[in-house]
Amino acid sequence: MNPFTANPALSVGALGERRLIAKLREWLGAANPPAPFGIGDDCAVLPASGKRRLLVTTDPVLYGRHFDDSLAPAAAAAKLLKRNLSDIAAMGGDPRSAVVWLALPRRVSIAWIRGFYRALGRCAHRHGVAIAGGDIAESPAMLGAFLTLLGEASGPRVLTRQGAKSGDWLYVTGELGGSILGKHHRFTPRLPEGRWLAARREVRCLMDLSDGLAKDLLELTPAGAKPALDPAALPVSRAARTLARRDGRTALDHALSDGEDFELLFALSARCDRAAFEQAWRRRFTTKLTRIGHFVRAGDSCADALPLDRYHGYEHLAGA
Amino acid sequence: MNPFTANPALSVGALGERRLIAKLREWLGAANPPAPFGIGDDCAVLPASGKRRLLVTTDPVLYGRHFDDSLAPAAAAAKLLKRNLSDIAAMGGDPRSAVVWLALPRRVSIAWIRGFYRALGRCAHRHGVAIAGGDIAESPAMLGAFLTLLGEASGPRVLTRQGAKSGDWLYVTGELGGSILGKHHRFTPRLPEGRWLAARREVRCLMDLSDGLAKDLLELTPAGAKPALDPAALPVSRAARTLARRDGRTALDHALSDGEDFELLFALSARCDRAAFEQAWRRRFTTKLTRIGHFVRAGDSCADALPLDRYHGYEHLAGA
Repeated sequence: MNPFTANPALSVGALGERRLIAKLREWLGAANPPAPFGIGDDCAVLPASGKRRLLVTTDPVLYGRHFDDSLAPAAAAAKLLKRNLSDIAAMGGDPRSAVVWLALPRRVSIAWIRGFYRALGRCAHRHGVAIAGGDIAESPAMLGAFLTLLGEASGPRVLTRQGAKSGDWLYVTGELGGSILGKHHRFTPRLPEGRWLAARREVRCLMDLSDGLAKDLLELTPAGAKPALDPAALPVSRAARTLARRDGRTALDHALSDGEDFELLFALSARCDRAAFEQAWRRRFTTKLTRIGHFVRAGDSCADALPLDRYHGYEHLAGA
Repeated sequence: MNPFTANPALSVGALGERRLIAKLREWLGAANPPAPFGIGDDCAVLPASGKRRLLVTTDPVLYGRHFDDSLAPAAAAAKLLKRNLSDIAAMGGDPRSAVVWLALPRRVSIAWIRGFYRALGRCAHRHGVAIAGGDIAESPAMLGAFLTLLGEASGPRVLTRQGAKSGDWLYVTGELGGSILGKHHRFTPRLPEGRWLAARREVRCLMDLSDGLAKDLLELTPAGAKPALDPAALPVSRAARTLARRDGRTALDHALSDGEDFELLFALSARCDRAAFEQAWRRRFTTKLTRIGHFVRAGDSCADALPLDRYHGYEHLAGA
């Protein structure tokens, strides 16, 4: 069967990413357990025979999409590992081992591959990750690397995307937007922060930001609730402001819509001592932490809150 | 940095697969532990905190390489899972969970993806494998799926490619050659056979055949030894004979050189009771088992043995 169609209405592009992934899960049937044991969270949680639960995540870097000629091979390699490390951070886990598949056209230069693998080895070693396996597949048209990262829960609890309630406070680490100006490969995965958050019961749920706050926030929003964000509170990055001056969009739009922030987003129980929590964070980390709003009931009016439906995060497969 | 070179001598194609993989391991440095804990065996063995050691393997199916328009999407999906299952079988393990990455051009039809994922779900469920995670990456030029499969050792022992000695007998399951005529996607991963072999101390080492016996056998051959195969003993498949009639090569050449047999190859200690071993196999399995030769010391002359250096298995990235 020819996998391709000339009719856009019958193509996967017509579905878009969210609907396609919902369909994939439906088609997999009994083989796809509910998240976090199946598709749908930052990592999948595996039933392990050991004392610590196992985490697995997989993300690629593809030439022309996640990196291009402007990036050194070392930077592409570091990005590959770190975007997977960020997923482990988003469950409060510790990274352990990785396997890497390379889709490799023959005319790739040895110098490029050498730069890529040396950097991958250095970055893995620095994070205590063993490159346990991998292989190459000759690929006529696409250069890319697919990395699967295994980790372990750092404690008895794995922090998923589920569990937020109306009233919960919303926090992000770092600053948002404009990552294309450099942060998309120079970021630091928030591993110590993720471990620390997973150990605190007042933190309800956690994820990392990869497709932009406006889109990713939907993943944490519980049924019957909606996020009410304070536009003045958002930690807009300098890069978002620079981009805004160039392209005429607002810096806020960039902070809400740009992908690849690789910061953490979490919900904090409204019943906890917020000031004590923030103080404990500042004692432990220099990483910036910002309260950006809270969840309200879906029917509540909140005139001052950001109209999030006007902003769109990064949509994979959009506009076929 | 532009990853591509116009000079073939500076390209990865000039290295070929074996030398490139040796280079990748060298470049990874301290991040790549020796096999079976790093690159170099059918699966990587992970240090697990549980009682059973963890196995991980990863293999893709790429359009134009591992499947084409002549194959139904269901057959491509089954092939993807089964080639990874065969790697778990080759270590004597039990498959547990998988994650799948799809590199997806927008113009792929929904009908094709539906057929692929439904079959993947059915095949996974039949083998007790949970599809624990995965995602899609838009890819302009390449359609492919990368699957990472996790398994557990079925007992205290993981059977690797290391451990053969001069004098050891060599065995293969099933029949060899001509898999392109259908077996490359209709094969049965030898999971029960792998588990059974791993539980027997007289079996020294094990692998699955994916690049052709002549090439794969080098992986089991210990230093200072060479394989002496009996040409009359080789279990040449009917498909290999059919191909030979079509292309003028010999059926033996096909049996030695064709890839994707997905049969098991192992070495049996010369000190064990070979007849008792073969009888135990026949009591347990209907799968054909053939003794094809043995390892001799590298300096020994063996005039009747197959001149293996005349045959070549499937070489990835060859002839750039």
